[in-house]
Amino acid sequence: MSIELKIDRSHSLAIYQQIVEQLKDRICNGRLPAGTRLPTVRRLAADLGVTRLTVQNAYSALQEAGWVEATVGRGTFVSQAVRPTTFGRALTPALSPDTVISEILQVNHAVGLRSLASASPDPHLFPAEEFWQGLITQQTDVAATGYGSSQGDPRLRVEIARDLQERGIDAAPDEIVVVAGVTQGLSLAAQCLAQAGDRVLVEQPTYLGLLHTIKAQGLQPVAVPLDEHGPILDELERLLIQERPRFFYTIPTYQNPTGRCMALERRQAVLDLATAHGVVVVEDDIYARLAYDDPPPPPLKALDPTGSVVYVSSYSKLLMPGLRLGYLAAPPRLVERLISLRRATDLCSPPLLQRALTIFLREGGLRRHLRRVLPLYRERRNALAQALARHLPGAVQWSTPQGGFCTWLTLPNYHAFADLERAFLAQGWAVTPGEVFLAEAQTHKSLRICFGSQPPETIAAGIQVLAGLIHDRLHGRSQPQPLVNDWAPLV
Amino acid sequence: MSIELKIDRSHSLAIYQQIVEQLKDRICNGRLPAGTRLPTVRRLAADLGVTRLTVQNAYSALQEAGWVEATVGRGTFVSQAVRPTTFGRALTPALSPDTVISEILQVNHAVGLRSLASASPDPHLFPAEEFWQGLITQQTDVAATGYGSSQGDPRLRVEIARDLQERGIDAAPDEIVVVAGVTQGLSLAAQCLAQAGDRVLVEQPTYLGLLHTIKAQGLQPVAVPLDEHGPILDELERLLIQERPRFFYTIPTYQNPTGRCMALERRQAVLDLATAHGVVVVEDDIYARLAYDDPPPPPLKALDPTGSVVYVSSYSKLLMPGLRLGYLAAPPRLVERLISLRRATDLCSPPLLQRALTIFLREGGLRRHLRRVLPLYRERRNALAQALARHLPGAVQWSTPQGGFCTWLTLPNYHAFADLERAFLAQGWAVTPGEVFLAEAQTHKSLRICFGSQPPETIAAGIQVLAGLIHDRLHGRSQPQPLVNDWAPLV
Repeated sequence: MSIELKIDRSHSLAIYQQIVEQLKDRICNGRLPAGTRLPTVRRLAADLGVTRLTVQNAYSALQEAGWVEATVGRGTFVSQAVRPTTFGRALTPALSPDTVISEILQVNHAVGLRSLASASPDPHLFPAEEFWQGLITQQTDVAATGYGSSQGDPRLRVEIARDLQERGIDAAPDEIVVVAGVTQGLSLAAQCLAQAGDRVLVEQPTYLGLLHTIKAQGLQPVAVPLDEHGPILDELERLLIQERPRFFYTIPTYQNPTGRCMALERRQAVLDLATAHGVVVVEDDIYARLAYDDPPPPPLKALDPTGSVVYVSSYSKLLMPGLRLGYLAAPPRLVERLISLRRATDLCSPPLLQRALTIFLREGGLRRHLRRVLPLYRERRNALAQALARHLPGAVQWSTPQGGFCTWLTLPNYHAFADLERAFLAQGWAVTPGEVFLAEAQTHKSLRICFGSQPPETIAAGIQVLAGLIHDRLHGRSQPQPLVNDWAPLV
Repeated sequence: MSIELKIDRSHSLAIYQQIVEQLKDRICNGRLPAGTRLPTVRRLAADLGVTRLTVQNAYSALQEAGWVEATVGRGTFVSQAVRPTTFGRALTPALSPDTVISEILQVNHAVGLRSLASASPDPHLFPAEEFWQGLITQQTDVAATGYGSSQGDPRLRVEIARDLQERGIDAAPDEIVVVAGVTQGLSLAAQCLAQAGDRVLVEQPTYLGLLHTIKAQGLQPVAVPLDEHGPILDELERLLIQERPRFFYTIPTYQNPTGRCMALERRQAVLDLATAHGVVVVEDDIYARLAYDDPPPPPLKALDPTGSVVYVSSYSKLLMPGLRLGYLAAPPRLVERLISLRRATDLCSPPLLQRALTIFLREGGLRRHLRRVLPLYRERRNALAQALARHLPGAVQWSTPQGGFCTWLTLPNYHAFADLERAFLAQGWAVTPGEVFLAEAQTHKSLRICFGSQPPETIAAGIQVLAGLIHDRLHGRSQPQPLVNDWAPLV
């Protein structure tokens, strides 16, 4: 059996990873169905003109991820667990931020599925060896085995304060609270600022995790519409007056899910409005350092002289989400209350992980890492933009993100495209349906596409498949199934 | 200068640790004040008849903990940071579970202070090398860098389910939710079962962290009085009827703060009452495997045929708190809601730490560790019981704990002893005042004493100092300062 792989020695992807990706392609598109025996390591190495070790590495990576199974003496086979077409049914039909977050976490590890659904960095790019070096030398540090400070290791807060200066924010280590990722930061900020029944302004669309978090706290999200440059100011002002919200949640830079970046004048105007109406701004800046073109404008926190901004960020998107380490930079009047809430929630973050991150930051590891990965992510962003431009019909709206991991497709209506993500899933591809990012229902179908964790070829291949499904629906060549949806918009 | 250390080669404590502990004694009691030059390594080694490496290890440990400072060419000096008598003033005067938790976390790392305040294991006993071995081999596991399942790594849940069988609990991995320690488990359980304004029954006294957590959620604790065998049943029944609580929080085995163990018949009766009145029991079993005499009775969860018990535990007390990994075992009807709340709170626990713990548990590390540390903790418990029996006047009530890390002293009245923990602190010793464990004020002064993290000699020395302060107050030889206390009991 020939499986016709193509190795490109000038490619940024390691050769073994090229083999992995191309085999995944063939498994996903059904050319290598479950149970198929793969060529022997020796045979494939000879065919491709690569070392046996390279092929062995590729097979091991596929085996570790569950895509293939190896039996000593019999060979390597495509796993019986690979059943892409069953996903559409296996995943829960109820569409809500809660269930979708759960599914995004699952599909990252699903066998037989390529995910454009998760706004995550590529785990293969994480500098594991360098990072854990700091941890290994800390093994005998007995202080790291005990409880840590609820505010966070002071040494880590010093490094975070230094890091924030690069974003133009002048925050003292005492104004910083270490948290278990942005989700916890937002949860604590919401608990600190609002009570069950209160209203909160959010961008439309916005981060689905925030919608789930505030719903769990009994808060009511109210949608602020966006244009290309950020929140529409008239609407924002009207809602600030009318709804008397407890805070306005915004992701000004490389927004999740749209990828948009708020213009500088808009930032200033948003801040002026919030200050005038005495409403706190909760600013989520998690994607800002993933800038692929020009540097982004300064964060609202850097433009805020009056202490109106609670700033939240994390190392999840820059390094790895599994670290579960983020931070709040808050006006001094709120810091004690935030720490007290952290104490009531889970006491503290693991001191050992905080130590490892401190050492990594102190020794310039993050800067080196960004120098290395930003060109790779830029290449993926370019692959996405090219594929979208090439394959999508003009009726679909989207824009090229200048940073972050997301873009947002708006289809010309809702009903013809209601089943789009499920049809895509049946082909072995995951994306996130737009509905779960909305505080109020909208008349158009949308999708969020994430490009951070897949190589350019995979992104291009996925967009081509998606475009085919869109064309079918645009020209009535597909019979969309009615959407089973018991999810009430979160208003 | 001679500092008269005494080495006991038959002692369970390593020789370098004996040197550390005795030097800490002399620093705390003022015989080695800040700035004192210690003997050279060579000199002390010769004096004690030990190797220079041993003395060097002791000095390094003291230096790492901040008790001494070394200057090349000049020698080793007692640190200027050692100012035990300033603690009484430096620590906040407001007495509440929140501030006291904060202080307990601080005093663990405070220089010039010996802590009997924290119900923690001894960090020196943690099998760091064996434990992290599992982690190091996982460095290249890319899945561990990403987000993990909100319910917890399924492989870890399999090991926890196995572990629970040793406590007589038959829980499927699907009924288990991994959490960031018992504090998070309790916070999620409370969010799941109650809403702001609801009442919750708690033992009097109870775990101070729970009081802080439910207060942060706007819940009202109602005190259930205890006798030697557990909650007083008539009172419990009356409160179940009268207060219509959302749940009853109990620590039946080696309770924090009293160290008491609920009798088997009482467990059955508590469960019957809760079931009869349709009230969920939240059972905290974190200390149960630290049994120094007979094995404890089975947990309520193992006696519960009707799904009335939410069970919470963790590896914080068995291994190390810094891991921040615990778990809930919940009736199936509550599991989805608990996972959803976890997702709204912080998404998931660090996958890498979950992997390390999974491997450690699977390879029998916990069992080996307990075999090694239980005799040491038993020895500390014995040292505490002997010192209490020997030094305390008959007017002070306490009982010998059969497991866990705590005992509870009840003084004969309140006012004569109101400043007891502050006077003890001024001598360089930290304990936790009883007030913060109470949902309702009581007429007697109490203290919680923890013995897990100090060697027997230190415990004995501390109790002797404390007994002196109690005698002074009992016989009117001390003028107690009025207590500055703006803490309203949490009712």
